[in-house]
Amino acid sequence: MGRILAFFLAISFTQAQTNPASIAARSWREGHEQAILDEFFQLLAVPNIASDQVNIRRNADMIVAMFKKRGVATRLVEAPDVNPVVFGEIRTPGATRTLVFYAHYDGQPLDPKEWATPPFTPVLKDQRIYARSASDDKAPIIAILAAIDSGAKPKSNIKFVFEGEEEAGSPNFGHILEANKDLFSGDVWLICDGPVHQTRKPLIAFGARGIATVDVTVYGPKRELHSGHYGNWAPNPAMMLVKLLNSLKNDSGRVLIDHYYDNIEPLSATEKRAIAAAPDFDEELKKELWLGSTEGAPKKLIELLQKPSLNIRGMASARVGAQASNVIPSTATASIDMRLVKGMDHKQVIALFKEHVRKQGYFIVESDPSADVLMSHERVAKVVSKEGGYNAVRTSMDLPISKEVIGAVESARGPAVKVPTMGGSVPLDMIEHALGTQTITVPIANHDNNQHSYNENIRVQNLWDGIELMAALLTM
Amino acid sequence: MGRILAFFLAISFTQAQTNPASIAARSWREGHEQAILDEFFQLLAVPNIASDQVNIRRNADMIVAMFKKRGVATRLVEAPDVNPVVFGEIRTPGATRTLVFYAHYDGQPLDPKEWATPPFTPVLKDQRIYARSASDDKAPIIAILAAIDSGAKPKSNIKFVFEGEEEAGSPNFGHILEANKDLFSGDVWLICDGPVHQTRKPLIAFGARGIATVDVTVYGPKRELHSGHYGNWAPNPAMMLVKLLNSLKNDSGRVLIDHYYDNIEPLSATEKRAIAAAPDFDEELKKELWLGSTEGAPKKLIELLQKPSLNIRGMASARVGAQASNVIPSTATASIDMRLVKGMDHKQVIALFKEHVRKQGYFIVESDPSADVLMSHERVAKVVSKEGGYNAVRTSMDLPISKEVIGAVESARGPAVKVPTMGGSVPLDMIEHALGTQTITVPIANHDNNQHSYNENIRVQNLWDGIELMAALLTM
Repeated sequence: MGRILAFFLAISFTQAQTNPASIAARSWREGHEQAILDEFFQLLAVPNIASDQVNIRRNADMIVAMFKKRGVATRLVEAPDVNPVVFGEIRTPGATRTLVFYAHYDGQPLDPKEWATPPFTPVLKDQRIYARSASDDKAPIIAILAAIDSGAKPKSNIKFVFEGEEEAGSPNFGHILEANKDLFSGDVWLICDGPVHQTRKPLIAFGARGIATVDVTVYGPKRELHSGHYGNWAPNPAMMLVKLLNSLKNDSGRVLIDHYYDNIEPLSATEKRAIAAAPDFDEELKKELWLGSTEGAPKKLIELLQKPSLNIRGMASARVGAQASNVIPSTATASIDMRLVKGMDHKQVIALFKEHVRKQGYFIVESDPSADVLMSHERVAKVVSKEGGYNAVRTSMDLPISKEVIGAVESARGPAVKVPTMGGSVPLDMIEHALGTQTITVPIANHDNNQHSYNENIRVQNLWDGIELMAALLTM
Repeated sequence: MGRILAFFLAISFTQAQTNPASIAARSWREGHEQAILDEFFQLLAVPNIASDQVNIRRNADMIVAMFKKRGVATRLVEAPDVNPVVFGEIRTPGATRTLVFYAHYDGQPLDPKEWATPPFTPVLKDQRIYARSASDDKAPIIAILAAIDSGAKPKSNIKFVFEGEEEAGSPNFGHILEANKDLFSGDVWLICDGPVHQTRKPLIAFGARGIATVDVTVYGPKRELHSGHYGNWAPNPAMMLVKLLNSLKNDSGRVLIDHYYDNIEPLSATEKRAIAAAPDFDEELKKELWLGSTEGAPKKLIELLQKPSLNIRGMASARVGAQASNVIPSTATASIDMRLVKGMDHKQVIALFKEHVRKQGYFIVESDPSADVLMSHERVAKVVSKEGGYNAVRTSMDLPISKEVIGAVESARGPAVKVPTMGGSVPLDMIEHALGTQTITVPIANHDNNQHSYNENIRVQNLWDGIELMAALLTM
């Protein structure tokens, strides 16, 4: 390395990292990498799909034990038929405020056949760790543990809240908060979830989109029919679904459900400035993702994430590929998620969706329709919204606590990208609603982590950086 | 039973069955039902997917052995890398014409998980036999064997031709016929395939629709993306596919591909009369299939089958149901079959289809596109037409041989429904093209046989009736 280059790197390092707790965390981490990874692998090896209650509890118990080992008072908060919430607390004598760190220990459902390596057998490969929840969202839990180990000494009271059914839509989290208001109260909730910016710069999100999901099934003949002997006469549910889904969005990506955009709260001047200042990574991202076009072009990704979306997350009817056969399918199903922005209500969005389906000529049912129902209506759609949805939130960037979090993050990791609303969803509205507490999201995972898909992973460097970030936030 | 009712039933029976060979076949069958079923089950137990070359050969060898046992000179006609054609022959001294009986011994691809009982373990239940190819198309082979056993004595020369890759689109059958013209020549080919009328009346089809199949895959991001972090920006291939498929048909079922209907040959007066005379079973069929509407209403099924169709036979993108996750899928695929009527050319139809996809803004590839191809085009579609398609045929009902076949069928089984074109496809154009021989289709299977789907079956009564039909046709 040339002398001048080394000098500039040193400058850049100094500018990026001025926080003493972060500097200490890095130094500590460099001497304990194997031990950190061992603990991480131990946690990743426990399957954590929210519906798998036995293993969910093994995860929760393991996290409790890990925190207790560090002297953090930790326990499970229980409710009937609910995955336990892990709650930990560090009381700091003389502290005048409380910081609450949130993460979730459950992971997205998966199909192991799609994975290159088994999802609950963590593998270190090419400087990444592959496993379900490696990034979403067990990494922040491990980063916090390592930051504590590195000697980070809080000035505030600290609480840890780790949820066990976030990927199932947090159906019970709001009730648990309501029932334990004092326990969970604090001056701010720091949400440790989601990815940093695609440039790998740190990112602070002051809000997150809400979500509503819905599954739609439409019906053709009672049983699959020979497409030769009945084609042109028997209604094809795949084509019916196509017509229905086509009615939901126009070619430029605008959702055509009536009143969908009615109640959206506009962005503030600070928020608009933050979006304009964000790095433009779109062309690089298109290359990384092999994209020849984007849906909302010429608008940038960060702009488009401030708007609500409607996404077909899965679609199925009969079979394709080698197993395709010449049938008229009996049913066709689409699974849809809608990402909501501040001002939209998730329950009302489902109601608007159903009304839209009705306007396309469908009779709506909520469970499998009987022969009578099918025969007495031209078109029948089963519309089910099982997973609990929730609303978007957006914390003002102008609040003192917002400015303080920006300061802590940038002192640990250098200039941060500040986004009013991140694209993903976390149940922040429940926190605001139950506790009246603002939230700020401080992610650590790499953006290219295959979150919610197969081969989920975290870059080891992101885990290391996350430890330094957590050290800065714990000592804020 | 009242005397008068018994009298009318007797009359009806007599009217229905005047053919001595059929009467003899019934009597023989009544004494040998178990033996017939044993032989049928033995044949059904051999898996017969066209791609499974080892088992395909076991089927062919078994059929050869079964015919040889009856003294019929039978052998395999081979070509390199082609499933063998079973060929059998009965030479009748003094005969002035040759009747060729066609069936196929291969079956549709399947997913065993969808079946109530294993597809190659035949089961007799509720007076039906369940197994792949129980109806499509091993039943006619067994019916012919039983008719021979019953003593049916041909007046014509008889040839048997059993194909082994019909369900794969008969990619090689035309070449084999061309290469063996004398061997396969005859005065008429009797096609033993497809179902009888839904009223369970016998049916004679003077033609069949042709077919062209195509698989279309469209591309979103290189890998599945988190639908929160990228939704609104990354193109969703499921929605792209929806827009593309939507452009193919209007709401009343008309295909919107330019020039799709251009070259269709109109129906003759006799053909129109036959359609008008066919029983109207549509309302019963709607009840049987739990349908509240039909695609081409108010037109009848039999009318609609005289027109070309475009059918989505399967559609898939990411996952639905319990395995759905919040992703933007990476690809979306639809499998499509188009049923063609006389005058349409299957290769031209594929060309028109591709041109239509191009007009929707797609760059077309025939294998998985490279990153470069994806990045340098707004939209890319892989359009593959692997399975060999073929054209429709229609034999005039006014020919002497047509009238003779009608006579034989009605003397065996009573008044028949006569359709100019049946909805399903069989490679009849290859026969006409290679040999210059007309074809007439004489099916035996029940319409509700789950042909091409899971739980395929044949009513035992349809097998028994089929034996009587084959006895009449063999002695024509």
